[in-house]
Amino acid sequence: MMNSYNIALIPGDGIGSSVTDATWEVLGAAAKTCGFHLEGKEFRWSCAFYKETGAMMPANGIETLRGFDAILLGAVGWPAEVPDSVSLHGLLLPIRKAFVQYANIRPHRLLPGVQGPLKSQDFDIVCIRENTEGEYSGAGGRVHQGTSEEVAVETSIFTRMGVERILRFGFEQARKRRGRLASVTKSNAQKYSMVFWDEMTHKLAAEYSDVCVSSFHIDAMAARMIMAPESLDVVVASNLFGDILTDLGAAIQGGLGFAASANINPDRSAPSMFEPVHGSAPDIAHLGTANPIAAVWSGAMMLEHLGEASAASLVMAALEKTTTQGIGTVPGKDKTDAITAAVLAALD
Amino acid sequence: MMNSYNIALIPGDGIGSSVTDATWEVLGAAAKTCGFHLEGKEFRWSCAFYKETGAMMPANGIETLRGFDAILLGAVGWPAEVPDSVSLHGLLLPIRKAFVQYANIRPHRLLPGVQGPLKSQDFDIVCIRENTEGEYSGAGGRVHQGTSEEVAVETSIFTRMGVERILRFGFEQARKRRGRLASVTKSNAQKYSMVFWDEMTHKLAAEYSDVCVSSFHIDAMAARMIMAPESLDVVVASNLFGDILTDLGAAIQGGLGFAASANINPDRSAPSMFEPVHGSAPDIAHLGTANPIAAVWSGAMMLEHLGEASAASLVMAALEKTTTQGIGTVPGKDKTDAITAAVLAALD
Ligand SMILES: CC(C)[C@H](C(=O)O)[C@@H](O)C(=O)O
Ligand SMILES: CC(C)[C@H](C(=O)O)[C@@H](O)C(=O)O
Repeated sequence: MMNSYNIALIPGDGIGSSVTDATWEVLGAAAKTCGFHLEGKEFRWSCAFYKETGAMMPANGIETLRGFDAILLGAVGWPAEVPDSVSLHGLLLPIRKAFVQYANIRPHRLLPGVQGPLKSQDFDIVCIRENTEGEYSGAGGRVHQGTSEEVAVETSIFTRMGVERILRFGFEQARKRRGRLASVTKSNAQKYSMVFWDEMTHKLAAEYSDVCVSSFHIDAMAARMIMAPESLDVVVASNLFGDILTDLGAAIQGGLGFAASANINPDRSAPSMFEPVHGSAPDIAHLGTANPIAAVWSGAMMLEHLGEASAASLVMAALEKTTTQGIGTVPGKDKTDAITAAVLAALD
Repeated sequence: MMNSYNIALIPGDGIGSSVTDATWEVLGAAAKTCGFHLEGKEFRWSCAFYKETGAMMPANGIETLRGFDAILLGAVGWPAEVPDSVSLHGLLLPIRKAFVQYANIRPHRLLPGVQGPLKSQDFDIVCIRENTEGEYSGAGGRVHQGTSEEVAVETSIFTRMGVERILRFGFEQARKRRGRLASVTKSNAQKYSMVFWDEMTHKLAAEYSDVCVSSFHIDAMAARMIMAPESLDVVVASNLFGDILTDLGAAIQGGLGFAASANINPDRSAPSMFEPVHGSAPDIAHLGTANPIAAVWSGAMMLEHLGEASAASLVMAALEKTTTQGIGTVPGKDKTDAITAAVLAALD
């Protein structure tokens, strides 16, 4: 009997479909080699869909996705036509929240042959970003709008459950890696939310005494990622701080073309979602030069999550072989198709 | 008649006093050359003061400072003995707020001879950070503390006045420089505060049509500072985002030893405060190797603010001459005294 997995494919907007297509081809080839089956069903939910229907996904979108083993997403957004507040809040963010994908995992290291902007080339970081609450809770309001007396407030909400589970996830990841966890806050200036986070970190540290944990302020951590990235192993941070640090991580690994991510529901009570960190880049979508590496890497993370670790390793090895050859290493230089073909060839 | 300025000196904790002493010597020499007088009065408000008196400064501290032309501060904090929440909220932050120092200016470029962590060496950025409200408003609370049901909230407060004045300040700075302003938000995820900021940016852009303004999300801007710092001129951001970006700016300019800052009250209704971005570093305070360059550079910004532009240029030229000689360019290598002596010699 062959294992088979049902995957929901959401290409989204702009370059989303070319990187999703590329990923699907590579994953299919790896599945074949390793003797399992990936069954894909495509959902063309996107800004174009919004312009036709008035919604980013159908009313039963979440229920439709719930039955799948995993979701592979390209990129969402077409700001010139649909405000981000509509597109992202209508598709990407609801999925993360509805499926309790509270752990956003983003690996940051240089693939061989890729030139990063730093002199330091030698780092291997995994960022764990809280994905469901905190600074992106969406709570707030505006009064006296449009007048000179206007006030806007935005409230970050941190729950014990939310903070504890992401920290535990971070500690577990650190255990599986080099045993070091950096927890990121700004407790010297945000004395409610961030002091709470620090207290929880301290509390859990006692339980995970085999993990070496340290606390950093976000400003110091941002600087450290540039000055001493090799000193970091697992970094755990809130929704906003993780968002910022993972774009920095993408930068030091050569750019968004190389930044993969997994939105994980660790309890497996609902599907997890895998997506490159990059956006839909509608301005370059027609050029055919989108780098599929970030999406393929995210696909490898999906295989890992599905329990197909050797297929995941195979895909990562093929990516590394490709970049070692100098293919896909310089933004905009190679065509998506050429990079995909090289990865497929490297799989054999 | 000779111009004379009354300066309040607050060395603070740890390395604060050595960098303040160095700065004071250099500024005094520059004043002498340029024919004006600096009258200093020292206030030993610090964590040690707190341990003696139970407060970071006397009850009339703010009123005492109000009469000065400017404040020169070293560094505040001694976390092993006094929590940051006490030390920073008892001295540094109250001064910024009480004196409406709403514009925190931080220049980021490489002094000649300094090796930054980036391959790119060619950038000249000024960050303008909002300094009095936003994410560091201090509003929030915690319920069910210490239980499994605990919730902590932290509220960012943005007022029309606060946002408008910092943006105007940013536009004015851009006008004085290369005419480009980057405004930083996260309006795709924080739909009250940051959408408001974007709207205000858009509104003011019409008025400053000679300035080329663009909006970035904080994650994209953090990446841009690493990937393409040469593309940036003036960057304006909220309290938190500015805090993060300026530590990143410090990183790309070679570290906190080179990062200067000015907390400006643009209306001159109260004194402005000048301080290096670095902290008090109590662990290295006894080594005598604190780099005074960031503090001296902050002092040059003070001279500029006082209207003594040629003295300010003189000090900056002396700093550059010093680093060109390779003195003070490598963290921990040279003694504070040796660096100071080199700057003084370069002033002649
Ligand atoms: C598009 C945006 C809402 C999203 C986020 O902040 O979560 C993106 O920046 C990311 O990092 O996945
Ligand atoms: C110490 C801290 C409160 C302070 C701030 O965030 O304002 C510091 O990080 C800075 O950048 O000046």
